[in-house]
Amino acid sequence: MRIAIPLYPGFTALDAVGPYTVLAFAPGVTVTFVAGERGPVVDDQDSLSITATATYDELPDPDVVLVPGGPGTVGALGDHRLIEWIRAAHRTTRWTTSVCSGAFLLAHAGVLDGLPATTHWGFHDQLAAFGAVPAAGRVVTEGKVVTAAGVSAGLDMALTLLALLRDEDTARAVQLAIEYDPAPPFSSGSAATASPELRERALSLIRGV
Amino acid sequence: MRIAIPLYPGFTALDAVGPYTVLAFAPGVTVTFVAGERGPVVDDQDSLSITATATYDELPDPDVVLVPGGPGTVGALGDHRLIEWIRAAHRTTRWTTSVCSGAFLLAHAGVLDGLPATTHWGFHDQLAAFGAVPAAGRVVTEGKVVTAAGVSAGLDMALTLLALLRDEDTARAVQLAIEYDPAPPFSSGSAATASPELRERALSLIRGV
Repeated sequence: MRIAIPLYPGFTALDAVGPYTVLAFAPGVTVTFVAGERGPVVDDQDSLSITATATYDELPDPDVVLVPGGPGTVGALGDHRLIEWIRAAHRTTRWTTSVCSGAFLLAHAGVLDGLPATTHWGFHDQLAAFGAVPAAGRVVTEGKVVTAAGVSAGLDMALTLLALLRDEDTARAVQLAIEYDPAPPFSSGSAATASPELRERALSLIRGV
Repeated sequence: MRIAIPLYPGFTALDAVGPYTVLAFAPGVTVTFVAGERGPVVDDQDSLSITATATYDELPDPDVVLVPGGPGTVGALGDHRLIEWIRAAHRTTRWTTSVCSGAFLLAHAGVLDGLPATTHWGFHDQLAAFGAVPAAGRVVTEGKVVTAAGVSAGLDMALTLLALLRDEDTARAVQLAIEYDPAPPFSSGSAATASPELRERALSLIRGV
């Protein structure tokens, strides 16, 4: 089982590494970070670099594509090699997936045309302009396409995906291995219940990077 | 506010990147990955490398130390530069923290002598042999020392820490920015409620890396 996570400058680290950690823990799964060139790719904060160990040409046909989001998606929409790689890989994937604003890259590659999909709450409505149908839900599955809401939702998506790729017992064992029994100290993670002031403050943090 | 995350071969990626993403989103916070030498450091799966951008000597006095865990902690216990860096930095930190088995590195540096602390459920009792007092809780705060349970607990710890470093409103805004409103598809993340079979399977996944 070969899973490919494309990296581009300005990705959000947790978008990629949350699902990576869940999926890479499973036996028989290989996760590879890919990019236009091999080498380090810097994140949205300019303070974390993950090494891409294969080029798009070297991994054209992964079983699973998992596209992270981040402020860098705006620039990545113009990265023809990335978009064409997604488009071509999607023809033979078992699953094509995204986290956060990675959905816009899937959409730009034509993967989400007319499909229900989700993304970060701050940009959810904008999916419609890209041909997708903005759908409620932290993880939205439609055929072989799975999209997740913002950043940390990739963890929940990856467990869902792992149960589909392997089986539910494997997903449960990984969940216990990473002790994913979440207990955030605040209950401020949902835009549906956040005050307008908190929503604006969160969006300004995102715009600041 | 300068936060340092030391990397060593065999760290678990989410241990480092969960807290990194939470903390780096906050204004005025700089997070630096440090190691004995600058350059990429490979994780427990041999498939993800994060670049250390400073050596221990270049960042001897961070405001916050955050030590990730992973199977590599066993080898890292013998890394004198890492252990001495933790010991020396702790004298002047505002907060000294760990995720998962990173607690054993804090303990080996003398930081946890006689203190309540936590770590991954699979190794919790073993903290006593390192001079700490194994304590219940996903995040344990004792003076300026904060320890978190396994892997994903670093997210909850980082939000707690950010509220202490800055203020609760900032932590809430970051929680919303990363849409941390967790909804795992299974409720298998707690060892307290897991079957012996699931616990054994989870531990075998950890031993397998």
